[in-house]
Amino acid sequence: MKKIPVKPFWWRNKIYIIDQRLLPKKEVILKLESAKDVYNAIKEMKIRGAPLIGCIAAYGVVVSFLENKKFSNERLKDKINQDINFLRTSRPTAYNLFYALKRMEKIVSDWDKKNKEKLFKKLLKEAESIYKEDLSACYKIGIYGNKLIKNNMSILTHCNAGGLATTGFGTALAPIYIAKQKGKNIHVYVDETRPVLQGARLTAWELEKNRIPYTIISDNMAGYLMSKKKIDIVIVGADRIAKNGDTANKIGTYSLAVLASFHKIPFYVAAPISTFDFNIENGAEIPIEERNEDEIKKINGEYICPKDARVFNPAFDVTPNYLITGFITEKGILKHNEIKNLGG
Amino acid sequence: MKKIPVKPFWWRNKIYIIDQRLLPKKEVILKLESAKDVYNAIKEMKIRGAPLIGCIAAYGVVVSFLENKKFSNERLKDKINQDINFLRTSRPTAYNLFYALKRMEKIVSDWDKKNKEKLFKKLLKEAESIYKEDLSACYKIGIYGNKLIKNNMSILTHCNAGGLATTGFGTALAPIYIAKQKGKNIHVYVDETRPVLQGARLTAWELEKNRIPYTIISDNMAGYLMSKKKIDIVIVGADRIAKNGDTANKIGTYSLAVLASFHKIPFYVAAPISTFDFNIENGAEIPIEERNEDEIKKINGEYICPKDARVFNPAFDVTPNYLITGFITEKGILKHNEIKNLGG
Repeated sequence: MKKIPVKPFWWRNKIYIIDQRLLPKKEVILKLESAKDVYNAIKEMKIRGAPLIGCIAAYGVVVSFLENKKFSNERLKDKINQDINFLRTSRPTAYNLFYALKRMEKIVSDWDKKNKEKLFKKLLKEAESIYKEDLSACYKIGIYGNKLIKNNMSILTHCNAGGLATTGFGTALAPIYIAKQKGKNIHVYVDETRPVLQGARLTAWELEKNRIPYTIISDNMAGYLMSKKKIDIVIVGADRIAKNGDTANKIGTYSLAVLASFHKIPFYVAAPISTFDFNIENGAEIPIEERNEDEIKKINGEYICPKDARVFNPAFDVTPNYLITGFITEKGILKHNEIKNLGG
Repeated sequence: MKKIPVKPFWWRNKIYIIDQRLLPKKEVILKLESAKDVYNAIKEMKIRGAPLIGCIAAYGVVVSFLENKKFSNERLKDKINQDINFLRTSRPTAYNLFYALKRMEKIVSDWDKKNKEKLFKKLLKEAESIYKEDLSACYKIGIYGNKLIKNNMSILTHCNAGGLATTGFGTALAPIYIAKQKGKNIHVYVDETRPVLQGARLTAWELEKNRIPYTIISDNMAGYLMSKKKIDIVIVGADRIAKNGDTANKIGTYSLAVLASFHKIPFYVAAPISTFDFNIENGAEIPIEERNEDEIKKINGEYICPKDARVFNPAFDVTPNYLITGFITEKGILKHNEIKNLGG
């Protein structure tokens, strides 16, 4: 495997993360040493991005073990299960969170409550597997997605579905990293992505680090660029994909998909299988998180509107399957009616 | 005529404006005492909005007279004409600027260079006419547009096409003010409108002052709201409308029009006749201003992205006539193929 573009976290008996809220201004490393630390890191978006949330939550269960190993085996098991349920409530939409915690829960549930060290090893191994599987899946997404990117193409992306949102390769950005490694001449248009500005802050930061030419635009400029034939393809990530292919992703994705369809521009969703929720038939069943008003009302701590203004702040929207040209996964590029073949 | 919702400027031997860059945090009054002051106020967006730009430019010619009346009649005339040409370069897109300056230029050109006092009175009278005509036109836009607004409707608007963008009644907001005065129960969704945030800052401020219920959203949330059937009608303003109805307005308007069309939601442009450019056949002939990068890169003086990031910052886009349900003008609500009947 090639060089990993970004390392958003690492494990050394605790979880070390880059505090993504402070990028690109400051690169601050935080330690997560308790399930509560992990919960807060996810809830407050110190880390974000569906695959990374899943991976950090998995290591969060290892952290929970370390925090609670002083207790009896019986109590330890209860404590860890409590923490797993607690971590499940950190954010509602990203499916990888539930996917990863279910796998960790299985390890706990299979434990015979005899040997603590054995449980620790199994938990750590499972978290590492989730990490490695994501790294490998994202790399393959890059390899498959690269086939869609021709020389001199301009790619539009939304939010951050890059290394920072995953274990390092990204989902939507993985094909871009691979295309760059293959020597293709490409240009990335980056939606700034209000309100949290993950595009302007995070995608720009990691493209800059990887020397990939990019231009930031306000979200409302995408249609104009499309009308001027400046966009050849749109690639976005996903927070949860239903069995029929309806896709929850960062707010604004749906508008982009409608605009791409209107301009006959291919619109792709890049995501590992861990983002597919095979328990739900369609997007209507995906819970959409509404976040606090100050995310919109304040930027860099200052109000941008009247203090008493009401705002509406859904963090995600759902793009219906028929607006999605294809899904770039580690198993290849699929149409929405092929998702069921993934098994799940 | 009813109470004017907002007074964005007044004349008392000089031009007094509210510095719109500082709203809603501070209400600072500035005096404009030279053509250069007026040029800078327009260029730096201390005042903005096509009808207001036109009106302030007209008074700017009166200011030019006062600044230059010490010169000989011959020189005075030259000086004023120079200032008129200078003011024409303050911003390229809003047609009202050119409309108003052409009228003021005619007064200067008709002057027989004999009596300075006579020229002053005529210039002032013409500026006042432009002011009063806009006030009356916007009020009528409100009366006609109000017919489109039924009780319990939710209206989406973009940028600020309110009192602050005009002589006080607004274009897109005029129907909303009239509907409110008629006792209708309405709700306004306000696009924050990146990069300059005229929606979050200015539209919210004036709706708050006029006690009209509103909710601010990020620009990228409009499609989601439409898909949830939360928007009954979209009304926006205009900076320049071509003979065929193609309409330049704040960047993002085009995306909204595509989204409205996709969701079968009526999409109206509200503008006085002074915004119609009868010299151009279609939108391809409208010059689109690109503004400086820091408008996107900094908010409240702080970078929101890597300092060296490249950005693209077109201030406007052009919405093609076929995406516009109708034009709300002081002569009634027109279809795009009826614009030619306005004469021009």
